[in-house]
Amino acid sequence: MLKLYHAAPFANSGKVLIALKEKEIPFESHFIDLHRFEQHEPWFLKLNPDGQVPVLDHDGFLVTQTTIISEYLEDAFPDTPTLRPADAVDIARMRLWNKYIDEHVMEAVSIHGWQVRARATALSLDEDEFERYIARIPLEKQRKKWRQAREGFPQADLDAATEKVRDAAKRVEDQLQDGPWLVGDMFTFADINFYCYCGGALERMFPSIGNRDTCPRLLDWVDRVHARPGVAAALAMDVPQSVGDAKRK
Amino acid sequence: MLKLYHAAPFANSGKVLIALKEKEIPFESHFIDLHRFEQHEPWFLKLNPDGQVPVLDHDGFLVTQTTIISEYLEDAFPDTPTLRPADAVDIARMRLWNKYIDEHVMEAVSIHGWQVRARATALSLDEDEFERYIARIPLEKQRKKWRQAREGFPQADLDAATEKVRDAAKRVEDQLQDGPWLVGDMFTFADINFYCYCGGALERMFPSIGNRDTCPRLLDWVDRVHARPGVAAALAMDVPQSVGDAKRK
Repeated sequence: MLKLYHAAPFANSGKVLIALKEKEIPFESHFIDLHRFEQHEPWFLKLNPDGQVPVLDHDGFLVTQTTIISEYLEDAFPDTPTLRPADAVDIARMRLWNKYIDEHVMEAVSIHGWQVRARATALSLDEDEFERYIARIPLEKQRKKWRQAREGFPQADLDAATEKVRDAAKRVEDQLQDGPWLVGDMFTFADINFYCYCGGALERMFPSIGNRDTCPRLLDWVDRVHARPGVAAALAMDVPQSVGDAKRK
Repeated sequence: MLKLYHAAPFANSGKVLIALKEKEIPFESHFIDLHRFEQHEPWFLKLNPDGQVPVLDHDGFLVTQTTIISEYLEDAFPDTPTLRPADAVDIARMRLWNKYIDEHVMEAVSIHGWQVRARATALSLDEDEFERYIARIPLEKQRKKWRQAREGFPQADLDAATEKVRDAAKRVEDQLQDGPWLVGDMFTFADINFYCYCGGALERMFPSIGNRDTCPRLLDWVDRVHARPGVAAALAMDVPQSVGDAKRK
């Protein structure tokens, strides 16, 4: 049996939810409320000692890290619709996109998201409560990020992140001159990756970048992504509204 | 025709040289002298705009990023000896090791190496010459790292890096309770990765960690790695002695 522990269908959780729906692989959904810090509960740390979603549980084999989960789905379910090219050159191109998106784009968009959502969550707690939650976070990097969210990220960091997003959007806009998707004519994990970490939120979060003057091909690509049944199914998933208020727990 | 632009057979270049030798894939070797900053020459930046080795050129298709090159060799040369498990679970395990080693272990060992070698190179130049070389480096992160090498890395950073190495060695030592290699019974890219970034240099660079009291299984594993003909062939490659003195160019 396949189980997925996940949050709402965007960013990290979106990558795997979309892959599962596109590949038409049935799974048992376990919603984890990040804004109630469920991912740091002792029972969850047994699944992933890093305290992060998503976690895939395939008959007891636990897989973490979204890009590794994606390729695992491809390797473990070879008879389902494929999201990885067959050709060695195209696979390498897909992986180069994934590495760039995972290591450079994700964090740049993420701190803008955290500045709003995680900050609201952090500020809803008094300092003692906040510190109690923070003390449970296994990764030092995540503890720092939560503290930074409570303080507010420095404007210089937010601006630098925006420039990285602008650069990423330009790279994708340029790539889309060559075809409808990031790697040739096929919708792959690279498209899902860029959509979930950046492309899907570009118009809303970065309107000076995500507009028809600057990125016409990219916005057409977003429409093509939305038109895919698997993507639509993932986005329509009935997950509990995350409350942004850890106190309500 | 396969060409590899590479430095000496350890760290990033070692990963790909060992993989090519283990897979018995013939290639044309192009040595790049990092301590003469050849990787930032305009002709090299046409191969890799990031100015980093190694770069694989397969009939004009350029692949960068060592872990992506490794998987490309597996996909493009499926009839050569394999370094990637066949089973989906084991592939995911290999990729989880690779991600951990690439993102956490490599840099921790690297700054200790840079503190000696890159620092000597940087100090061999007067300030103007040094700044001229630095100005050509495309990646901001690498410019910062060269400046830090010239100044000397802060002791606190070196100490924190040593602790990461200690943690990595412990993880590998624990894993080797279960079998001779990092992933089951098969020598894989994960072994090559850990060997090139950390394991192969542990006794020399971190004697308080890499000794028979602390890591007996790991040191036996190093012996097993050295006994592999492909590894031995890569380590024996006749590459020019890097001079650590950019002035001699």
